[in-house]
Amino acid sequence: MERGLSADARNFRPSAIRRFAKYYHDPSIIGFAGGSPSSETFPAARVAAIAERLLREQSSVVLQYGPTAGVPRLREFVAGICRGRGIDCTTDDVLITTGSQQALDLVAHTLLDPGDVVLVELPTYIGGTGSFYARRAEMRGVAQDDGGIVVESLSEAARRFQPKLLYVIPNFQNPSGRLMAQQRRDEVLRVAEEHDFLIVEDDPYGELVYAEGADTTPIAARPGSTKRTIYLGSFSKVLAPGLRCGWIVAPKEILAAIEIAKQAADLCSGMLDQSIVDEFCAGGELAPQIERVRNFYRGKRATMLAALGEHFGGRATWTPADGGLFAWLTLAGDVDAEARIEDAVAAGVVYVPGAPFFVDGSGRNTLRLTFAKEPDERIRDGVARLARVFA
Amino acid sequence: MERGLSADARNFRPSAIRRFAKYYHDPSIIGFAGGSPSSETFPAARVAAIAERLLREQSSVVLQYGPTAGVPRLREFVAGICRGRGIDCTTDDVLITTGSQQALDLVAHTLLDPGDVVLVELPTYIGGTGSFYARRAEMRGVAQDDGGIVVESLSEAARRFQPKLLYVIPNFQNPSGRLMAQQRRDEVLRVAEEHDFLIVEDDPYGELVYAEGADTTPIAARPGSTKRTIYLGSFSKVLAPGLRCGWIVAPKEILAAIEIAKQAADLCSGMLDQSIVDEFCAGGELAPQIERVRNFYRGKRATMLAALGEHFGGRATWTPADGGLFAWLTLAGDVDAEARIEDAVAAGVVYVPGAPFFVDGSGRNTLRLTFAKEPDERIRDGVARLARVFA
Repeated sequence: MERGLSADARNFRPSAIRRFAKYYHDPSIIGFAGGSPSSETFPAARVAAIAERLLREQSSVVLQYGPTAGVPRLREFVAGICRGRGIDCTTDDVLITTGSQQALDLVAHTLLDPGDVVLVELPTYIGGTGSFYARRAEMRGVAQDDGGIVVESLSEAARRFQPKLLYVIPNFQNPSGRLMAQQRRDEVLRVAEEHDFLIVEDDPYGELVYAEGADTTPIAARPGSTKRTIYLGSFSKVLAPGLRCGWIVAPKEILAAIEIAKQAADLCSGMLDQSIVDEFCAGGELAPQIERVRNFYRGKRATMLAALGEHFGGRATWTPADGGLFAWLTLAGDVDAEARIEDAVAAGVVYVPGAPFFVDGSGRNTLRLTFAKEPDERIRDGVARLARVFA
Repeated sequence: MERGLSADARNFRPSAIRRFAKYYHDPSIIGFAGGSPSSETFPAARVAAIAERLLREQSSVVLQYGPTAGVPRLREFVAGICRGRGIDCTTDDVLITTGSQQALDLVAHTLLDPGDVVLVELPTYIGGTGSFYARRAEMRGVAQDDGGIVVESLSEAARRFQPKLLYVIPNFQNPSGRLMAQQRRDEVLRVAEEHDFLIVEDDPYGELVYAEGADTTPIAARPGSTKRTIYLGSFSKVLAPGLRCGWIVAPKEILAAIEIAKQAADLCSGMLDQSIVDEFCAGGELAPQIERVRNFYRGKRATMLAALGEHFGGRATWTPADGGLFAWLTLAGDVDAEARIEDAVAAGVVYVPGAPFFVDGSGRNTLRLTFAKEPDERIRDGVARLARVFA
C-alpha cells in the first residue's frame, strides 16, 4: 500500500520527540524530556466551574458547530492581546485554531508548494518543520546564537535560496530557550523586505518571562510588518493545551485562504474549548493566571540553572532560559547526546537529544532540558545524574 | 499577495453552504438550510456533570496534551462500535479525529496527489469534496438513484478515469438522505477490487434510522474489504458536534501515515472533548442517547414528508429520508433553486440549493431540506411557503 500514499505522505516525518514518550510517564525516571507545560499550572477548578455553567446555560452554542474563524468574542479578545503586544490588528485579522500546531499546518498548506524553501533557525521547533515537510518544502538552516538568529547567516541564506518564508520563534524558543534581541528583529524584517519573503512568527512562550527587562516585542509589531508577518499565538502554555486553542493573525488575503483551509481541515475548533477560554479571558482571569504560571516556573528555572552551574561548569554551555520552558545544553567535545539516552534512562533521568531540532543534521552534542515538570529536589538530583552520564 | 498562495490554496473552494449562514440564525425565517443536528438532542446536563467531574478529578489528563491517535479507552470503544457494525477491527485500527471533517482532510492529504481522480456520487457532501479540491484532486461524478450509487455508472467511471479512490456516504447521505442498497454495496466493493481503487466510506448518519428494516451494514463489513476501505464515523450527529469527535478505521500502513499527518495537523484532538465522549460512552449512555435522538427526529421527518406530499405532489419528487437529517427535493421542469433563495427568504423560509453538491454542475432543480431544526408546526408552514415560492 506504500505505493498508494501521496507524495506528501511519503515525505511525512514523525516527531522525533514522541519516540521517547514511553519514558515520559514513568515516575521512576526524572523527566527533563517532553515539552508539555506542568499540569500544576492549569486553573482546573475555575475551568470546571466555567465549563459546568456554560453547559448548563449555553449548551445550544457550546455543543453546536461554530464559525470557522472562531468564537467572535474570543477573536476580539485575542486582537486585544496582540494590540497589547504592539501589533496593529483588529478582530477580523484573527482566526482561532485547534492549537497553534494547526496554525502552522494551515499556514504551510496555504503558502507552500513542493520545493519551496523555508528558512528555519538552527535549532528550531520540530512541530513547525513537521508541517513544512508534510508539504514537501525544502528546509534551510540559519545560524542562531544567544542573541537569536544570526542576521548575516539569514542574509546569506536569503540570497542563496530565495525562500518563500522564514519560520522563527523569537521569544524563548523551543528548543533553545533563546530570546532574539530586538535589533535583530528589526534586521530580520529588513532582510525579509529586501528579499521579499514572508515571516511566520510563532510566539507561544512570550508571556512566560522570568528575567526582568526581557523585551519580547514581536517582529509583527514593527511598522510596515503587517503585510509580511504571520503571527501565531497560543493559550496552551499559559492556560491548558488540552483545550487546543491557538490563533493566527495574518494579512487579509492570506487569512481568507487560511479560513477556507480550516473549513476543510475541521470546520471549526471545539466550541466548548473555545467558549471556556473565552469566558476565562472575558472574566479578567488571564492576567493573574499568567502571573501565577510565571511564578510557578521561575523557581524551577533558577534551580535548574544553579544545578547546571554546579555539575556542568566547564564541560558544557547553556542558554540563560530567561523565559519559556527549556534550558538548552551544548556539551564540550565530541559527544552524541542521542546515543546516551539509554544510559540516562538507566541512570534514572531522561532528556530530549538536540539533533532532531537541526534541519542540517548538526547538533549531536546538544540536548533540551525542560524544567517544567519536576519538583526542585528532583531537578537537582536529575542534573547530577545527567552529569554522571556525560562524565 | 495572491501570487504568494500555494497551488493548493488557489484551488480551495469555500463551502457553498456557509454562504447562506446569515439566514440560519434569523428566528423569523423558517430554517430548512444548514446541516447541524438540533441542539435539543444534546445531552447537556449529563455532559455538564461529566465535564465538571473530569475537570475536578482528572485535570492533569483532560487539560494536558494527549496521544495523537486519541484517548485509548475511547479508541477501544469505537473499535467496539465498528465491530458491532460488522467491521473486522481492533483498537489499533482506530484513530480519533477532530470531528470527521478532519478525518476527510487527513485521508486526502495522506492519499491524494494533484490530478488524482476521486469518484464521488452525484450529489455528494461538499465537506468531502472541499478536502479533495484542497489537494487539487480531480472530481468525477457517478450517478445516484434512490437505491444509492448506480453501479453501471461507477464501472464506467472507473474504467474511464482510473480513480485513486471512491468517496461514498452509503447511509442516509448528505445531501440526498438516500440509503444505498446492500447489494449495491457488494458491487461497489467488487468494482473497487476490479479497478484497484480505495473506498472512503463516510458514515455519520448510520445510527439515525427512522424506518423499520433499513439495513445500514457498511461496505467495510464485507469479507476482504479491510485492505480497501477507509471507514469514517462521528459522534457529531448522535452526541454533539461542538465536541469535535470523529474517527478513522483504516488499513495499518495508511493509518500509520495518517497518524503522522495528524501530528502535523493538530498534535492531538481536544482532550476534554475526547474525555467527555469517552466517559459518556463508558457509562453505557450512548445507546439510550441514540434512541432518544432517533425518536426526536422521527416525528419531524414524518411531518416534513407529509407536508411535501400535500404541497409538492406532482410538482416534485423527494427521497424517502429513512434516516439522517435531510429530505432531498427534485423539482419538475426547468427551475433554478439557487436563483430562488432570495424569494424564499422574503417568503420567510430558507433551504440549501442542490447544485453545489454536484461536481459536474448539474442539479440546478434540486434542493436540500433539513427537518432537524424546526418544530412540526413550522415545518408544515415552511413547506407551504416553499410551495408558493416554487408555484
